[in-house]
Amino acid sequence: MKKIRAALLGATGAVGQRYINMLDRHPFITLEVLMGGESAGKKYGQAVHWLFPDAIPERFAEAQVRSARPESAEGCDVVFSALPSEVAREIEQNFARSGFTLVSEASSHRMDPDVPLMIPEINPDHLELLEAQKKARGWKGAIATTPNCTVTGLAIVMKPLLDNFAAEKAIVTTMQALSGAGYPGVPSLAITENVIPYIKNEEEKVAKEAKKILGGVRGGVVVPHEIPIGISCNRVPVIDGHTETLYAEFPGAVRPAQVVKVLGVPQKLKLPTAPERPIIVRRENDRPQPRLDRMSGSVPGMSVVVGRVRNGIDERSLQLTLLSHNTIRGAAGTAILTAELMQREGYIG
Amino acid sequence: MKKIRAALLGATGAVGQRYINMLDRHPFITLEVLMGGESAGKKYGQAVHWLFPDAIPERFAEAQVRSARPESAEGCDVVFSALPSEVAREIEQNFARSGFTLVSEASSHRMDPDVPLMIPEINPDHLELLEAQKKARGWKGAIATTPNCTVTGLAIVMKPLLDNFAAEKAIVTTMQALSGAGYPGVPSLAITENVIPYIKNEEEKVAKEAKKILGGVRGGVVVPHEIPIGISCNRVPVIDGHTETLYAEFPGAVRPAQVVKVLGVPQKLKLPTAPERPIIVRRENDRPQPRLDRMSGSVPGMSVVVGRVRNGIDERSLQLTLLSHNTIRGAAGTAILTAELMQREGYIG
Amino acid sequence: MKKIRAALLGATGAVGQRYINMLDRHPFITLEVLMGGESAGKKYGQAVHWLFPDAIPERFAEAQVRSARPESAEGCDVVFSALPSEVAREIEQNFARSGFTLVSEASSHRMDPDVPLMIPEINPDHLELLEAQKKARGWKGAIATTPNCTVTGLAIVMKPLLDNFAAEKAIVTTMQALSGAGYPGVPSLAITENVIPYIKNEEEKVAKEAKKILGGVRGGVVVPHEIPIGISCNRVPVIDGHTETLYAEFPGAVRPAQVVKVLGVPQKLKLPTAPERPIIVRRENDRPQPRLDRMSGSVPGMSVVVGRVRNGIDERSLQLTLLSHNTIRGAAGTAILTAELMQREGYIG
Amino acid sequence: MKKIRAALLGATGAVGQRYINMLDRHPFITLEVLMGGESAGKKYGQAVHWLFPDAIPERFAEAQVRSARPESAEGCDVVFSALPSEVAREIEQNFARSGFTLVSEASSHRMDPDVPLMIPEINPDHLELLEAQKKARGWKGAIATTPNCTVTGLAIVMKPLLDNFAAEKAIVTTMQALSGAGYPGVPSLAITENVIPYIKNEEEKVAKEAKKILGGVRGGVVVPHEIPIGISCNRVPVIDGHTETLYAEFPGAVRPAQVVKVLGVPQKLKLPTAPERPIIVRRENDRPQPRLDRMSGSVPGMSVVVGRVRNGIDERSLQLTLLSHNTIRGAAGTAILTAELMQREGYIG
Repeated sequence: MKKIRAALLGATGAVGQRYINMLDRHPFITLEVLMGGESAGKKYGQAVHWLFPDAIPERFAEAQVRSARPESAEGCDVVFSALPSEVAREIEQNFARSGFTLVSEASSHRMDPDVPLMIPEINPDHLELLEAQKKARGWKGAIATTPNCTVTGLAIVMKPLLDNFAAEKAIVTTMQALSGAGYPGVPSLAITENVIPYIKNEEEKVAKEAKKILGGVRGGVVVPHEIPIGISCNRVPVIDGHTETLYAEFPGAVRPAQVVKVLGVPQKLKLPTAPERPIIVRRENDRPQPRLDRMSGSVPGMSVVVGRVRNGIDERSLQLTLLSHNTIRGAAGTAILTAELMQREGYIG
Repeated sequence: MKKIRAALLGATGAVGQRYINMLDRHPFITLEVLMGGESAGKKYGQAVHWLFPDAIPERFAEAQVRSARPESAEGCDVVFSALPSEVAREIEQNFARSGFTLVSEASSHRMDPDVPLMIPEINPDHLELLEAQKKARGWKGAIATTPNCTVTGLAIVMKPLLDNFAAEKAIVTTMQALSGAGYPGVPSLAITENVIPYIKNEEEKVAKEAKKILGGVRGGVVVPHEIPIGISCNRVPVIDGHTETLYAEFPGAVRPAQVVKVLGVPQKLKLPTAPERPIIVRRENDRPQPRLDRMSGSVPGMSVVVGRVRNGIDERSLQLTLLSHNTIRGAAGTAILTAELMQREGYIG
Repeated sequence: MKKIRAALLGATGAVGQRYINMLDRHPFITLEVLMGGESAGKKYGQAVHWLFPDAIPERFAEAQVRSARPESAEGCDVVFSALPSEVAREIEQNFARSGFTLVSEASSHRMDPDVPLMIPEINPDHLELLEAQKKARGWKGAIATTPNCTVTGLAIVMKPLLDNFAAEKAIVTTMQALSGAGYPGVPSLAITENVIPYIKNEEEKVAKEAKKILGGVRGGVVVPHEIPIGISCNRVPVIDGHTETLYAEFPGAVRPAQVVKVLGVPQKLKLPTAPERPIIVRRENDRPQPRLDRMSGSVPGMSVVVGRVRNGIDERSLQLTLLSHNTIRGAAGTAILTAELMQREGYIG
Repeated sequence: MKKIRAALLGATGAVGQRYINMLDRHPFITLEVLMGGESAGKKYGQAVHWLFPDAIPERFAEAQVRSARPESAEGCDVVFSALPSEVAREIEQNFARSGFTLVSEASSHRMDPDVPLMIPEINPDHLELLEAQKKARGWKGAIATTPNCTVTGLAIVMKPLLDNFAAEKAIVTTMQALSGAGYPGVPSLAITENVIPYIKNEEEKVAKEAKKILGGVRGGVVVPHEIPIGISCNRVPVIDGHTETLYAEFPGAVRPAQVVKVLGVPQKLKLPTAPERPIIVRRENDRPQPRLDRMSGSVPGMSVVVGRVRNGIDERSLQLTLLSHNTIRGAAGTAILTAELMQREGYIG
């Protein structure tokens, strides 16, 4: 496999750190350039408030953080962006204009109709937007995005429900982990022994992004899926792993056993960061649990774990609980998987 | 107000302790007899693993726990039962047969069609079942029950939605407190930094009990309401206070402002344990929160706190978040309020 | 009792809120002026991120926050300062120069030898420094201070150990609550399911301040006590209440029963915020616990709770565990008690 | 290396599970027999309440649990005991009498003077007690034990302080993890947002066991070290990892830099479960932290992590904070390492 040279925007933040963590031993992507804002000029190991138990991989600890300008990334095949959304828009466009292909975790471009919002197992065909995007914008490079951490697990589970049973409505309640808010994020005084029933802008994002991911490409833009999604987002005192309850309705009867079968299908993308099963279905009553299940599967943190599959108020409705790791599957992992797919499909490298 | 003499079954358990706590200064109910199983014969203060920050009220600490037999309660006007459901059925029937009127927190008789399942603000008329019950069973006494801790808050909120807007469907996700499982209850190793997406038998109970409470009395039995309720119960690391998200559908459009108005109506029961507002509606985005709101209102812990009232997937659906204190409104408080109502209506005393 | 009119600097912060909370119903201190920095000009209810379950008392919610200048406090008898230490020094001196008497929670002046560092039950005589201070500094007003939240409980327990048994050495380990770090304070990602074995500058402060409080006044300055104190400060995931283990050595044998007796002596200050017992000694093995004991006593949160009194490595050493509420006894409560003492002794009002 | 065949007593408990987890891929110890009490006769996967995120290794899930009798372990070279101490004494003696060599985590025989209490890096020579033990007791087999989870980290740190600086006194405060109490262990209602300042019998055990481990062998028995140890044990809401503050006194001045050097010495035992560094010294102010550091080192969970090395009340005293993984280094890991040492030294296999 041809080597891919990568650069990272926002390297010192909580999401940025996860890229360092996941790309340290990647078979063909080598992370060569770390970029930051205030940390530019410092050694990474000194600039970062490192959040993981594992030590910072030595070569990154010693690397110098560069400023967030296209010149810093010269020679790189792909630029990952873990920038905070407030500053991402302009910087990312700047890189795209200069000819870089970006995979961005930031929300700034996610809902642009000519920008793909990627979950490689769900909508690999959306990558074709990149060409239209370049043309329309007159850019030498292009931007692909990955979704909000809460929508990723949900969309992965909804896809087979739509394809196989034509789901017509989804009502979702989330119990989201602290790491979803970054660092310093949620004050301990606010969340200890508590639930916070609100996450700013989150509910709107989840509904809109899910529909876009599940939609189709027509004429160089995405036509969102029309399934109505009602959602209530909550913060709970859990470090990593978003738990979500899903209630869905269907035009006809659905049998839980059928659903379990359809959810558990192994995937066909043979890429390093693609887990054998995008969805792992547990049969125990009391699973999934974030502390026990968030690192499940052949690529730890990349599988969505589903449990409690059962009918809802009648045989035409379904209830289940899903869990996905918000900073792996919900952030860096999906972005890296997207880059792997882009490489295979010839968009980068 | 005529004094009521009360006895308490299951006095040393987590629920029983809440009765001690709430009846210590009651204006007309005096708790005179404490009964227990293994603790019978001991001083209450020595038999109990006391869970509250406040000390055990002196006179109870020194009281001797009696055995759970009708003779122990001689002279009492009402018997509160905080027995575990496994042992409640037989003991409670024994007391009822002997002429006692019981108000029970146990689940054993809750779903018997001739046993009222009471939330005084919602279904005061269900008390009339007591007469039919006596007759049908040939008992000198009778049993009234109060609902599961999770259903109480939900039923209080659903009642005005049914009465005013003819709600047609309810989808509920709960985030339940640890005290709902009693003591020792949930192991800390199981729930620390975690969510458990299952509580045994809870979902079935909530749906069935809510429908009964919201139903009508016809011919000496309750005819349950028919609204379909889908529910997912979760345990979260919170000490007290069950948080629930509610999605509801209606035949026509509902405006959140109307809903807020209808939920916030003050109550008319002028009883000591009846809060001025059974439902307190908060307008801040990030409320209710269990740690901040569980003791709200004029009778701390007896009001349900609602927030985030908004439309769901369209103008004919609604979403909101509700919080109720599971061991006060969800247990001892509603039972005491029921006894107060029974006294006023002439069923006891 | 003559009424005292009070002003509050730093009214919107976590400590400032506790003053609002505690002074709402004070028998003779009326809080008339709220002052702030960025919040100046706004209504208090809108400027504050209110942290308590109880609502903001109405009259404060509607009060306008004034700027932190002496003119704002005109007519007030005492000024409480809950300012962050970074800004306190200059502002407080400004007030003192203008003739105000301050009681300050900030650390800026605590260690000045002519500034009393007050725990009214321990060193009421230190108030006499105020006169010397005025003279030496040429101020019309004066500054009294109260200690760091961690030292308060410790000093209250050490005082009788010094007076009665001539303690010679103290080794202390703390397990401190989150609220000690203010709001937003400790990130939840840092402390959830964790212990942080370090609190910046805390250990130095505790040792120095304890020695000053326990010292004597000579020639217009405090001569610190010389007992050596070794201390390790830790942060634990508890909302309120600092728990501390104390190991102490003595010149002769000490019997735990004697110690218990000496610690439990009722106090003689008959002031509204002085608890009947500054120290409550628990005899159960597993007390004190922060969640259960932090609000103990006749003035909730003002008593230090001590337990596990036992010998250490031999009969000349002692071990015990103590708990004190860090934002009540450790902050606003001791400051209010100091103002009460100052009023009685004729320093204010 | 010659293969060792092992059996495990108490296989389904919390400690037993850790053996399964750690022996799954051991280079020369193969766990062949699982024994239990009530679970005897069942498949291990069905009998166990599995506590780890990783799945039960397949071959163990399917293995049948045998009853806790010598016949069950026929052909095994070593028997690990993870039995609860209440039942361990008799069962273990029974095995030893029948000719088995045991390595036991239970406390029942730990303090017998002819039974070695092993931490292989500290007192490898204590193994010689095994011969004397056999002779004295007339057993064909023998029992070696490993210490309480709290003493392990402490003894590993005290050893170089004794050897190099002749430490004379140790004052210790612990903040212990929930898993130290087994499963179900500490109720969540007891420990959430709380500290419990007491662990039954723990303080006595830690002092006595530390002195035995640090003692010398003379005449077939251990002569305990005489250093006085004062200790206060606390439970905190942390899943795994005991944090301890240590204050120590010395006959002369000790320089923190010297101490750091002496603690960080790599070890010479070249055994699979021996980490390169038994003690890892961190220089950051805010380490060690249980969530971040408990799995440090070349054999995750086997290194003690030390930080905050500094003088105490003067230059002849020292303070530091240490962390050790209570179910790995503090239980199964040290037992497995002991078996590895016994194999090399010819005691088993």
